[in-house]
Amino acid sequence: MSIPALDARAMAAAQAELDRKTKPRGSLGRLEELAVRLAGIHGPAEPRFAVVVVAADHGYAEEGVSAYPAEVTRQMLSNFAAGGAAVSVLAREAQAELVVVDAGVREPFEHPGVRSARIGPGTANATRGPAMSREQALASIAAGRELAGDLEGVTAVALGDMGIANTTAAAALHAALLGVPAADVCGPGTGLDARGVQRKAEVVERALAANAPFADDPVDVLAALGGFEIGVLAGVALGAAQRRAAIVLDGFIVGAAALVAARVDPRVVDYMIAAHLSPEPGHRLGLDALGLRPLLELELRLGEGSGAALALPLLRAALAVLADMATFETAGVTDAGR
Amino acid sequence: MSIPALDARAMAAAQAELDRKTKPRGSLGRLEELAVRLAGIHGPAEPRFAVVVVAADHGYAEEGVSAYPAEVTRQMLSNFAAGGAAVSVLAREAQAELVVVDAGVREPFEHPGVRSARIGPGTANATRGPAMSREQALASIAAGRELAGDLEGVTAVALGDMGIANTTAAAALHAALLGVPAADVCGPGTGLDARGVQRKAEVVERALAANAPFADDPVDVLAALGGFEIGVLAGVALGAAQRRAAIVLDGFIVGAAALVAARVDPRVVDYMIAAHLSPEPGHRLGLDALGLRPLLELELRLGEGSGAALALPLLRAALAVLADMATFETAGVTDAGR
Repeated sequence: MSIPALDARAMAAAQAELDRKTKPRGSLGRLEELAVRLAGIHGPAEPRFAVVVVAADHGYAEEGVSAYPAEVTRQMLSNFAAGGAAVSVLAREAQAELVVVDAGVREPFEHPGVRSARIGPGTANATRGPAMSREQALASIAAGRELAGDLEGVTAVALGDMGIANTTAAAALHAALLGVPAADVCGPGTGLDARGVQRKAEVVERALAANAPFADDPVDVLAALGGFEIGVLAGVALGAAQRRAAIVLDGFIVGAAALVAARVDPRVVDYMIAAHLSPEPGHRLGLDALGLRPLLELELRLGEGSGAALALPLLRAALAVLADMATFETAGVTDAGR
Repeated sequence: MSIPALDARAMAAAQAELDRKTKPRGSLGRLEELAVRLAGIHGPAEPRFAVVVVAADHGYAEEGVSAYPAEVTRQMLSNFAAGGAAVSVLAREAQAELVVVDAGVREPFEHPGVRSARIGPGTANATRGPAMSREQALASIAAGRELAGDLEGVTAVALGDMGIANTTAAAALHAALLGVPAADVCGPGTGLDARGVQRKAEVVERALAANAPFADDPVDVLAALGGFEIGVLAGVALGAAQRRAAIVLDGFIVGAAALVAARVDPRVVDYMIAAHLSPEPGHRLGLDALGLRPLLELELRLGEGSGAALALPLLRAALAVLADMATFETAGVTDAGR
């Protein structure tokens, strides 16, 4: 199955309808662009949102690249499902269903609120060879597609991640897929100091060296540099686009998944909405490469889909403006802009 | 009655509580700053929002400074009350009460959904002398204060404006209060071309010349340059701060009201939250002068409080994070950031 083109006729109709609304043409700026794009993605459907948070562990953690120990991945998975994490709260606020996915934390995890899509017990340490096998990379993308297939009636899927050390995986993927030096895409993550950032960049350089040269195949790059949650998220994006749902990107790690998905099928980018700009330096490079402009810039550096969930009210507002505003004609307002 | 200082103890307690939540310290960026400020403004109250849209007509309209005829002010007032305008839709989406106020459209206006706070039938043309009397300026501020006094239990008041030609009044007020040339604060408003912007700047220069010199009294400056809705909005801001409600600023016209209010009582600024940055060039100058940083930058240039209403979900989210997130202790998550 392939990703359909956006519905150009629906987009033109939405723009024409917005131009009849009681406001100067274009005066709602980027909210109007959003409304038009959502019309092209899924038409005038009632908004129904899901936030999909995917967690996995990373061999990079052995290299001391995070301020937090690896067991936090598993602890946070439990916190997501129990409703106490930031994304749990923000998904509720956005009236979005929260789907929590274990793509491979180190120790197997059973929880009624967590969906299992385990590819393995965390990735291998990519500084010594591939983070995963090609088969695992393919399996992670397939698991994500399957997950998206289950999101019946969902018009927008917000993506989130959890995985101690996963900004290192995201940095390595950005470096390899964009062809930029490690130093350009390494930042403090959730709390490194300058020395920690430098160490992270060295780890990324070693991972790139251990796996070079990279074939022009996103699956091989994903296998080399990890991680499982990134592969699953790329799959969710591809699957969501296939079923005409908007894909609301969170920060840097989801950005890496978006780059992988875009290399698998460039048409997926039409369905992507960049929720926010992370302070991680690589995030802007990735969004620029995808041609996406973030909606929010709130210095969020948590991940989990927190920024994606925060942008959902803007989608709802854009759809409401298109559906519910009066036109110049119905409201009896003089239209000077005609 | 005077404006109370922010509750520093509540702010410190909120920051400490945020630091116990299951997330790296500060990782929710500006959302955390917002939560702390709201704690200082009103404490842990259940969020209750109002959007107050105030409309009036302007003598500047005689000078051909708007793409729209003056009767549109009145037509839009009716549209607000009927629920068809952008702000009507966006206030509903934000679960905010919409309060529609007539501060002085040209022809008297009766509508069950419109509150009357008429100061006069539109301002005089400020290029030939004061837009209103000092008594009218004081009455407009008093009417706004009274209005704020009626917003029982409201924790945040989003401000919006309507008035054909009121970007000209706002530009004149910015120029006079900030001491900058008219050309620096004149932009396309809701739809002028470059020649129109130049004409607007000339009109502002004439209004400044006709009323100079300006005393160091914001009421006299307001009286000289208008308009009635701007005075009422300044009063609502002052009254909202007095009763410890957050003031959510919209764009350039509300920004002019904020400048007036801040000159009346600088403590009001502590209660102000800048919802968005308008493309009007003067808006950023005004926010800079107030020391406020906008939350959104979506190229909105409609007014009406549309941008302020769009920012309300961020306030709700900030409060929910503070109230509802689990702590490291309650969730059993390892806290490495201590």
